[in-house]
Amino acid sequence: MKYVYHFGNGSADGSAEMKNLLGGKGANLAEMNLLGIPAPPGFTITTDVCTYYYNHDLNFPGELDDQVAAALSVIETIMETHFGDEQNPLLVSIRSGARQSMPGMMETVLNVGLTSKTIPGLINKTNNPRFVYDAYRRLIMMYADVVMEKAGGVEPEKGIGIRQRLEDILDKHKEKNCYTSDTDLTSEDLQALSEIFKSEIKLTFGSEFPDDPMEQLWGGIKAVFRSWNGKRAINYRKIENIPSEWGTAVNVQAMVFGNMGENSATGVAFTRNPATGENKFFGEWLTNAQGEDVVAGTRTPNPLNEETKTADTQNLPSLEASNPKSYQQLADIRTTLENHYTDMQDIEFTIQEDHLWMLQTRTGKRTGAASIKMAVDMVNEGMIDKKTALIRVNPEQLDELLHPVIDPENEKDATLLTKGLPAGPGGATGRVVFTADDAEKWKNKGEQVILVRKETSPEDVHGMHAAEAILTSKGGMTSHAALVARGWGKCCIVGCGALHIDSTKQEVHINDVVIKEGDWITMNGTRGNIYEGQLGLVPSDPEKHNEYKQLMEWTDEVRRLKIRTNADTPKDAKQAIAFGAEGIGLCRTEHMFFDDERILAIRKMILADNENDRRSAVMELLPFQKEDFRGILKAMAGKPVTIRLLDPPLHEFITLTEDQIQELANHVGLNKSHVEKRIASLHELNPMLGHRGCRLGIAYPEITEMQARAILEAAAELTKEGVSVYPEIMIPLVGTVTEFTDQEAIVRSVAEKVLNETGASFEFMVGTMIELPRACLTADEIAEHAEFFSFGTNDLTQTTYGFSRDDIGSFLPNYLDRNILDYDPFQSLDVKGVGKLVSMAVDLGRGVNSDLKIGICGEHGGDPASIHFCKENDLDYVSCSPYRVPIARLAAAQSEL
Amino acid sequence: MKYVYHFGNGSADGSAEMKNLLGGKGANLAEMNLLGIPAPPGFTITTDVCTYYYNHDLNFPGELDDQVAAALSVIETIMETHFGDEQNPLLVSIRSGARQSMPGMMETVLNVGLTSKTIPGLINKTNNPRFVYDAYRRLIMMYADVVMEKAGGVEPEKGIGIRQRLEDILDKHKEKNCYTSDTDLTSEDLQALSEIFKSEIKLTFGSEFPDDPMEQLWGGIKAVFRSWNGKRAINYRKIENIPSEWGTAVNVQAMVFGNMGENSATGVAFTRNPATGENKFFGEWLTNAQGEDVVAGTRTPNPLNEETKTADTQNLPSLEASNPKSYQQLADIRTTLENHYTDMQDIEFTIQEDHLWMLQTRTGKRTGAASIKMAVDMVNEGMIDKKTALIRVNPEQLDELLHPVIDPENEKDATLLTKGLPAGPGGATGRVVFTADDAEKWKNKGEQVILVRKETSPEDVHGMHAAEAILTSKGGMTSHAALVARGWGKCCIVGCGALHIDSTKQEVHINDVVIKEGDWITMNGTRGNIYEGQLGLVPSDPEKHNEYKQLMEWTDEVRRLKIRTNADTPKDAKQAIAFGAEGIGLCRTEHMFFDDERILAIRKMILADNENDRRSAVMELLPFQKEDFRGILKAMAGKPVTIRLLDPPLHEFITLTEDQIQELANHVGLNKSHVEKRIASLHELNPMLGHRGCRLGIAYPEITEMQARAILEAAAELTKEGVSVYPEIMIPLVGTVTEFTDQEAIVRSVAEKVLNETGASFEFMVGTMIELPRACLTADEIAEHAEFFSFGTNDLTQTTYGFSRDDIGSFLPNYLDRNILDYDPFQSLDVKGVGKLVSMAVDLGRGVNSDLKIGICGEHGGDPASIHFCKENDLDYVSCSPYRVPIARLAAAQSEL
Repeated sequence: MKYVYHFGNGSADGSAEMKNLLGGKGANLAEMNLLGIPAPPGFTITTDVCTYYYNHDLNFPGELDDQVAAALSVIETIMETHFGDEQNPLLVSIRSGARQSMPGMMETVLNVGLTSKTIPGLINKTNNPRFVYDAYRRLIMMYADVVMEKAGGVEPEKGIGIRQRLEDILDKHKEKNCYTSDTDLTSEDLQALSEIFKSEIKLTFGSEFPDDPMEQLWGGIKAVFRSWNGKRAINYRKIENIPSEWGTAVNVQAMVFGNMGENSATGVAFTRNPATGENKFFGEWLTNAQGEDVVAGTRTPNPLNEETKTADTQNLPSLEASNPKSYQQLADIRTTLENHYTDMQDIEFTIQEDHLWMLQTRTGKRTGAASIKMAVDMVNEGMIDKKTALIRVNPEQLDELLHPVIDPENEKDATLLTKGLPAGPGGATGRVVFTADDAEKWKNKGEQVILVRKETSPEDVHGMHAAEAILTSKGGMTSHAALVARGWGKCCIVGCGALHIDSTKQEVHINDVVIKEGDWITMNGTRGNIYEGQLGLVPSDPEKHNEYKQLMEWTDEVRRLKIRTNADTPKDAKQAIAFGAEGIGLCRTEHMFFDDERILAIRKMILADNENDRRSAVMELLPFQKEDFRGILKAMAGKPVTIRLLDPPLHEFITLTEDQIQELANHVGLNKSHVEKRIASLHELNPMLGHRGCRLGIAYPEITEMQARAILEAAAELTKEGVSVYPEIMIPLVGTVTEFTDQEAIVRSVAEKVLNETGASFEFMVGTMIELPRACLTADEIAEHAEFFSFGTNDLTQTTYGFSRDDIGSFLPNYLDRNILDYDPFQSLDVKGVGKLVSMAVDLGRGVNSDLKIGICGEHGGDPASIHFCKENDLDYVSCSPYRVPIARLAAAQSEL
Repeated sequence: MKYVYHFGNGSADGSAEMKNLLGGKGANLAEMNLLGIPAPPGFTITTDVCTYYYNHDLNFPGELDDQVAAALSVIETIMETHFGDEQNPLLVSIRSGARQSMPGMMETVLNVGLTSKTIPGLINKTNNPRFVYDAYRRLIMMYADVVMEKAGGVEPEKGIGIRQRLEDILDKHKEKNCYTSDTDLTSEDLQALSEIFKSEIKLTFGSEFPDDPMEQLWGGIKAVFRSWNGKRAINYRKIENIPSEWGTAVNVQAMVFGNMGENSATGVAFTRNPATGENKFFGEWLTNAQGEDVVAGTRTPNPLNEETKTADTQNLPSLEASNPKSYQQLADIRTTLENHYTDMQDIEFTIQEDHLWMLQTRTGKRTGAASIKMAVDMVNEGMIDKKTALIRVNPEQLDELLHPVIDPENEKDATLLTKGLPAGPGGATGRVVFTADDAEKWKNKGEQVILVRKETSPEDVHGMHAAEAILTSKGGMTSHAALVARGWGKCCIVGCGALHIDSTKQEVHINDVVIKEGDWITMNGTRGNIYEGQLGLVPSDPEKHNEYKQLMEWTDEVRRLKIRTNADTPKDAKQAIAFGAEGIGLCRTEHMFFDDERILAIRKMILADNENDRRSAVMELLPFQKEDFRGILKAMAGKPVTIRLLDPPLHEFITLTEDQIQELANHVGLNKSHVEKRIASLHELNPMLGHRGCRLGIAYPEITEMQARAILEAAAELTKEGVSVYPEIMIPLVGTVTEFTDQEAIVRSVAEKVLNETGASFEFMVGTMIELPRACLTADEIAEHAEFFSFGTNDLTQTTYGFSRDDIGSFLPNYLDRNILDYDPFQSLDVKGVGKLVSMAVDLGRGVNSDLKIGICGEHGGDPASIHFCKENDLDYVSCSPYRVPIARLAAAQSEL
């Protein structure tokens, strides 16, 4: 079995197609070699080895040793060096590379191969002892951290890891010598520090830092595989829904150095602007630096070229100006890569003594706006076709365009604290916190927070996820904070130098202003502005965005699934139409009852002892309800509107304080204890499984009658006014066909009366919400009577799993942490369980009634994966909240492709 | 289409096989004719006509008129009379007759054909004007009640029906004339009363009492069909699970009269004793009476023969002695019928002027004990085979034998109030109520009641059902109360003459004692004793009953389904073994925690902040749990025991008062507010769908560990002591295979340790309770790991329907009343919905694991219909409460036949 794939010098065993086996990085390194792009030679150990390793108690397959040795000798041949050679030693990097990019989530070891024996040779060869000892101390620090501590499973003493302790030794040494920067450290300093580091390591782990290159190599390889199951990686996979079975590959590659002097450099670039999508070569670089210096945000990097300079970077040197030859070579590679991959690439390069090396290319992460602009631009450029453009935009990313921005009226007069780099779009407002843990804690308490950090690291990912926005004082547009935030479409501002964070005092100074933990700030991530206090946000208007409009038109050309919206008010209905909704899939009627005048009527109804009193109380609601339905049916003129009859348990309408009970008693002329008794009698142990849905309409048919009459009278009036109406009356929570026919009979009898009384003529349907397992199991019986089904997958998920959404908080986080669930089934439809019931219901229902109209109106209606499932199951429509309508349109189009 | 079936004079169109079409009564009248038994000629209008009638807006098929006329003329020919003839008129009865007997639940009209024109002819013919006018006033009363009021849908004024008003007129007439009995009424009185009755009818209904025989006939036929959907009939069908689609047949038959003088009589008899099963001809009769006089309980009837006389009936005349010729003829018919039907018959007869007529034969209702005795006796007599015997006993009736009786220790010293006829077996204790409505109301409030009435009528059925027992002051062993109670196996004493009921004061005087509404009494229905106060009941011992033992042996010969029991204590386990249980299907462990010492440990566990404290609190429970499991495993030595790990939400263990919270806080050394906070944090909106079942074991693995260790250490110890143990560890509420494997891993790891530590070796299994729809839908995934499935159909029913058992009370009664549900799905398994999930889970599970052991442990495990379903689905066993084990054994045997 082949476990190791070589690449280098224009040849490679693998290619870009082999991402699953070689990981993204390895596959692309192979591909770059095949394209003739200069990349340091190396080899990839496959993801199969990762799987094998975890399935065999952390042991490797027997053949691996020989295959690695053989691949290593190929590098040696190309580089004309030897690993461990005392005269001419080869150094290698060891990096992870998963099928899907997980930036910074796994471990890396650089400079592997430096030992007491190879150091003199390398000094001799480079004539640069400082460079060599600096490389050596970096190797020691990384190795101690990644291999000896993390992969060794050693718990840091007092929570302070070895890396931090070595950093502290370094800092103390600098302090003692009054050095202000790492560059002040001399060759001798570094050599001495390396020895101190090794003693500290011996003391900590009870074993020596390995002086054998092969031991270093295998230690590194193992550590990278182990980091697949590190806490950070697991967290990230959970957020990104990456299966843990995929595993990572490991890339071993000849080292090249951007820090060999002023003719060396390193950089990161995007073939187009990842924030806006603009077709300009965009990147950042640093002279005499290693790659981590650019990404970590510890030095503010320079712009790649002249045309992408901004006001902030105007005076910094561009690579284009500083090293035109290398820049031109890089620009040519940009064209080659984009034409080859037909997508925007995120590349890393190193210039070692004026020689350009490509270290990585991968499809670049981008904002939603950039994603759409690039896709549409590339169609216009003839690079890709429309289908590819549609597939390329992640529906969830549209959300960013639809995300709120700061209300322009508020922003105009707001106090600008300072500006930074606009790394993630949209507006956000929240209370300042200074650690990722606090961000998560506050969020869990229901607070919205903004995470403020000097810079972020992969350890902060959970807090970044919890925060509304991220603000850093350091770093550039390709810093960790910027990359991660952009991936999530989250508001983010980086490199905001005016920020002085005092973590001990838990406060940040911005010029003369002091912001303490818990204070509100507001950010405009599109412009990079930071404001004091809490500003109102307003929805954005994606319709102003030409490429968005273009893409949405294309979605409508290919998609067959209709998109409806869940809306209870004419305002929401209009918003949804603006977003392209083709009807209402769920209009809830219970929210309409909470108005002062109405709630009194419904409370009277609840307190009534007999049908007559109940009926007269219910009928007080008729004019209100009729107005409600007139409004919605009119707003949706010409489009179908599914109206669900009263659903929630009655006790929801009489959750009252003592005083309110007395007031209500006075108002309806009953004594207080009577009211209290009635309230108590409505108490249920499990209201979710109690007296609600059609069970209410069956117990109190007058409610169904009133609601049916309100809908049908509204429809009749509008018809006479020339408005086309298509009301669809939906009976909720049906579990048996008899429940449906009981309620259907009431609706049809009211309809006959209303049509007679008004002389109006319009189409309407009577159908049901399918939200109980039993409804799915007996869908054939129900479909003999119902004209439509609408899957209420929220409730269906509750009963299929036996999970109450209200109570799941006590165990769901743990379930997700421990992979007992791969995802929250209330967010994305559980295909195996709930989905099986849905498929069954569709088959049974259509089996007896081929005209049956079928849709879905749970939260899942706006979830792309769930939409794909709906398409596969031949549903007629999905219905989601207005702001998810565009997402659903795109997801529906993608599901056709 | 043939709608009318003739019978008479030894020939018939139908036969006993045609019950579905002709109803039980009609089919058996046909059959008796074919057997040469004298039955008055007549005809049956089929159940098809009933269906047609209700499907066609209460219209009859066109052909019916002619077919009725033709059949009527056959009767005329046989009887040598003519319907409506002025000289020699034929009178007919019109009676209902459903597929399954519904005694007294539908209407009857007698003496049809008496008009102003036929009366003189009949007087002339019988020379008995008093008899004729008495028949006429009875016709008028019945017809006014049944046809004009009930079938006419006329609401009685002030709730007093026409029948009552006519009775009042009759009573006033008697009072005015100082008559003490109906027999004092003269021919002239009756003639005058008839005229007054007819005026009252005209006044009430605005129309005349019909004087045309054909109009009477058709009015009667329609009224009987209408009574199929009367309130009483609907109630009875609901209780007996008779589908409303069946419909009734109508029998029109020549009248014969038991009230034509001292040489006439009427009676009801059973071919064997319906209370004990004894093979003795048993019945009751009255001279010069109509059938209704015997059944209504208004006159205390005489014993049929000498050998069945009791102390109470010693001095009454038997038919055997009074009319040996007729008795002998009847006894011969008894033999003919029993040999023909090979089952005990319930017969009605009339002797008209020394001529014996059989009016009805049907399979007689009987007590459980009688049912078993007859079945076993008939096998021994060679009348039926074992299979027939097994099929013939209704499993539910076994319940009577297993029903509690009064604790003999208590009964010995109890105050005997009085004695009555022992009409229904077993003991019962309850609070006295005097109306059926009160019985139902009190029962719904959770009270156990005894319904005390002068006599009962079909209107009382709902209250009789609600009561623990029924006590009447009038009536005999074949009275309405006795028949109905026996059918249900309910404790019942009738004809208790010492009772003087004052319904106005709501009290009953028994000799000198006054019992008021709400006072406790206790009844021994087997002996007929009534005691003051509440006496303790004890389980009966069916093993003393030879025929029961015999029948149970036969069940074990044919059944393949194993029967287990649900038992949490060694005592219950032993009881279940005595009843024939072959293992424990569900041993719940939560009840074991409520002991004082233990509950403290579990509360400590719940209050623990960290895993260490929690673990140490949990481990305090280990010795207790181990003892529990030792006890149960030992009691079930050699038999499998399925033990379910902790299931209920933790808050169930800390439902505490303020004081108890303080006490607990003191005990565990926490402050009260901390304890309160923890209690509040465990509150759930829908605990049924909350943090319970395996979700607990996943959150707190130490609980699973402790329980697994307790079970396995107990098993190891017993094994070493030479006791065979087969523990089956059951993970509850699994919805995903990952939940199962998480918990399974803990159990298996504990098992490995315990087996190593103890060196013991025994078999055990790890399986799961299938009680969520998702578990059924993904049963294939789960069965790859689980060794057994046990269907928890209680919870599965809850989630499939979305019904919480705790809250269903607010709508289930209404659902049953209105036929939205045919039966309570928590009592009998819902085959269409829940059953479909069960079948799916069995198929999916066995599909990947053919060795999978599958059982059921919900309430349904003891329900015969559900057991039949389990057999059809190839389950290995059912598990039910100890007292239902014999029922399950019989039901399982029947499901094989």
